[in-house]
Amino acid sequence: MRLKAEDIAKLEQRIRAHLINSLSGFKSANLLGTINQQGQTNLCIVSSVFHLGAHPPLMGLIFRPNTVPRHSLENILSTGEFTLNHVHTEIYQQAHQTSARYPREQSEFKACGLTEQYGSLKAPFVRESHVKIGLKLEQHIPLTLNQTEMVIGRIVEVDYPDSAVKTDGHLDLESCETVAISGLDSYHQTQKLARLSYAKPYREVSKL
Amino acid sequence: MRLKAEDIAKLEQRIRAHLINSLSGFKSANLLGTINQQGQTNLCIVSSVFHLGAHPPLMGLIFRPNTVPRHSLENILSTGEFTLNHVHTEIYQQAHQTSARYPREQSEFKACGLTEQYGSLKAPFVRESHVKIGLKLEQHIPLTLNQTEMVIGRIVEVDYPDSAVKTDGHLDLESCETVAISGLDSYHQTQKLARLSYAKPYREVSKL
Repeated sequence: MRLKAEDIAKLEQRIRAHLINSLSGFKSANLLGTINQQGQTNLCIVSSVFHLGAHPPLMGLIFRPNTVPRHSLENILSTGEFTLNHVHTEIYQQAHQTSARYPREQSEFKACGLTEQYGSLKAPFVRESHVKIGLKLEQHIPLTLNQTEMVIGRIVEVDYPDSAVKTDGHLDLESCETVAISGLDSYHQTQKLARLSYAKPYREVSKL
Repeated sequence: MRLKAEDIAKLEQRIRAHLINSLSGFKSANLLGTINQQGQTNLCIVSSVFHLGAHPPLMGLIFRPNTVPRHSLENILSTGEFTLNHVHTEIYQQAHQTSARYPREQSEFKACGLTEQYGSLKAPFVRESHVKIGLKLEQHIPLTLNQTEMVIGRIVEVDYPDSAVKTDGHLDLESCETVAISGLDSYHQTQKLARLSYAKPYREVSKL
């Protein structure tokens, strides 16, 4: 199927949302934990987290335009803190449930059967998650093209299973049971094809 | 293993790169196709592509600081066009090979055994890929925090197998054999757990 710009523009809105959300490829699956100044926690699943740099250790994520309630973004801007917690095979249904529009005063932790855990930040981690990342807000960039907003956080704390880290620092996400997302609502476990050697010109890559 | 900011800062540089690159979770795997004003093509694998919005259809990607050659970014800024092509299980080793530092005058298409294909853009698609996306440059945002650069493109053309699209618009990436990346060099195929229903408060999600 070949679509041009005008074909895409003519698609029914929900069909376009499903299709375009599928096009970037597989996406990360994280639970975003925040707290407001009154101590009310919030949890929501996000598939828009991306790696931004290792030194300093930075991650970015995208928020939708403010035509929908965005309690998490308000909390991040107000407290300067948030956590990201990998979604794994045992909790992906509860994680998906956090995307429902609960009222502001309802914590998704309790509503969805997940447990708050606290480290060095005020923002809550998800106890059930196997990979937990604590971040401090570094920059907030409104994207004028479509009124989405980008948040950049600096990693200040990370917790993962000892057994998952390889001697070169690589984290074996499959041993953490981390899942991937495609489109708006599809969850996937993974099976490693291979790790490949650092590529050099005119020399074939090998499996590590 | 629990690491604080100061522990992360003390890690050996390559170990930190592997670890931090693993933390965001699974990443998309795309081949970025570009061409310069002289007609010289360039192809490189990118794991930093993310969905930015469906209407208008926008995708973002991140480029490393200009301490390394970035022929692709130069081509995008000069021509205003690029393509993204899903990496699949049959071409992931060739795709990885495109990350080698070939001289500017060497097209990675030829060096890595992949084939140029042309649609409505000057920028080349990858014939072997099953999901091909043509984009026009919309915005270029230097990120001052770490000298990376974000490029936002608008989708103007897309080509995917008829059999892969569901009636609701969702694209079945597994039928396209699209792979996921973790860390710097790990490639994964996926196995669907489920698609989940649109979440509503106080109602359990169901598998679609």
